[in-house]
Amino acid sequence: MISVVILGAGNVATHLFKAFTKSDEVQVKTWYNRDIDKLKSYKNDVYITNNLALLKEADIYILAVSDDAISKLSSALPFENKFLVHTSGSVSVHTLDKKNRRGVLYPIQTLSKDAEIDFSNVPLCLETLEKTDLKTLKNLAEAIDSPYYKISTEQRLTLHLVAIFINNFTNQLYRIGHEIADAKHIDFNILKPLILETANKVQNMSPYLAQTGPAIRNDEKTIKKHLKLLENENYKEIYRLLTHSIQQTHGRKKL
Amino acid sequence: MISVVILGAGNVATHLFKAFTKSDEVQVKTWYNRDIDKLKSYKNDVYITNNLALLKEADIYILAVSDDAISKLSSALPFENKFLVHTSGSVSVHTLDKKNRRGVLYPIQTLSKDAEIDFSNVPLCLETLEKTDLKTLKNLAEAIDSPYYKISTEQRLTLHLVAIFINNFTNQLYRIGHEIADAKHIDFNILKPLILETANKVQNMSPYLAQTGPAIRNDEKTIKKHLKLLENENYKEIYRLLTHSIQQTHGRKKL
Repeated sequence: MISVVILGAGNVATHLFKAFTKSDEVQVKTWYNRDIDKLKSYKNDVYITNNLALLKEADIYILAVSDDAISKLSSALPFENKFLVHTSGSVSVHTLDKKNRRGVLYPIQTLSKDAEIDFSNVPLCLETLEKTDLKTLKNLAEAIDSPYYKISTEQRLTLHLVAIFINNFTNQLYRIGHEIADAKHIDFNILKPLILETANKVQNMSPYLAQTGPAIRNDEKTIKKHLKLLENENYKEIYRLLTHSIQQTHGRKKL
Repeated sequence: MISVVILGAGNVATHLFKAFTKSDEVQVKTWYNRDIDKLKSYKNDVYITNNLALLKEADIYILAVSDDAISKLSSALPFENKFLVHTSGSVSVHTLDKKNRRGVLYPIQTLSKDAEIDFSNVPLCLETLEKTDLKTLKNLAEAIDSPYYKISTEQRLTLHLVAIFINNFTNQLYRIGHEIADAKHIDFNILKPLILETANKVQNMSPYLAQTGPAIRNDEKTIKKHLKLLENENYKEIYRLLTHSIQQTHGRKKL
């Protein structure tokens, strides 16, 4: 049995809490948040508190708080030599106060508040300063069926950057598509199978090989037609830049 | 039973041929291609030819050829008043020679040569100049279990444009992610669940509501860190532009 204390009440904290609760091998000893109101609905499931002095003993203390809060909160903890991790993609492990043993548990997934999350689809990037602590994190990952990877700080920063491209930026392309379709009274449902298939395709094929369309075909007639059709200047610029990027990647001539 | 003649040997032609062959309600009378070698492997399954004079009678003649070839090939057909469709997202129905009845059957999906395609996931956009021909296309769509939509020429051009954003451009973001990950010896498999979940999420939630990340949070510290990490000028520019686009969409302040 692995015991944990969760600090924070955001999406990552909440999804981790749910995954831990489902597992027979993890026990959540305390769930802390500065604003205890956000935890009230869980008060029958776990010991909740807004007082750092009342945190119970645990194998792992998980700081699932915003990047800017990590340093201060880790310094405010009233104990030493325990094992402490944060969950951020972009913060150094050394940002945690060094009075405790330190590590990172960074989930690479999009964890919206309302969506149900199956943690077997949430790869966990693990980093620790001490080897024995890494074993503890691996055990925790296994307890909730998550695939896990030992990742250095530099790799984690890069992973976070890549996640922005394939999640936030991709989602913005969906949003742009939704907006353009709406303006012409086109049902966005028509496009949903294509969104899924585009993502499915690269599960077994490199994105390089999966590419199709007017940019890679160097089909200037269609590209010009599309640029004319686009009214929003920002979207026009995105069209130009990504077309150019595809042509660079595949050695086609420049726009 | 609906009878069809297919003209062309590219991805769309091939996938349609396979879908028609699987259906009990469709019969492929002839498969034509200028270069008959490309059809040789199907010669036991269907009558193949490279001679337009030898096309058999059918309810629908499907021109699944490149955009630039549609006009010329439709004029070269040695018959009149038959029902002819092309499969392009970006070509007007009027590009087809008017000696025949005209329409469009535009599949909104990414049809790579090697991938297996389930046509129940391929929405078909239908357009005809005559109402009775629309019924024929609807029957054909039903015969291969495809969802179908009556779409005007203007809507179809817009759909094609939107498909570029959510398929080609999204795939390029995957490619950029792959390249950046590779450079730091990060296993791209770590990122595949995130790619899938990002696509899954917008099946039931608008992309607007699904957005997360540093751009929408206006997290300038992380954005600056990422821009510094990016070495490729094109990728830096894509990061800036899409961050800006997210912030515009969500009313955040500009970069």
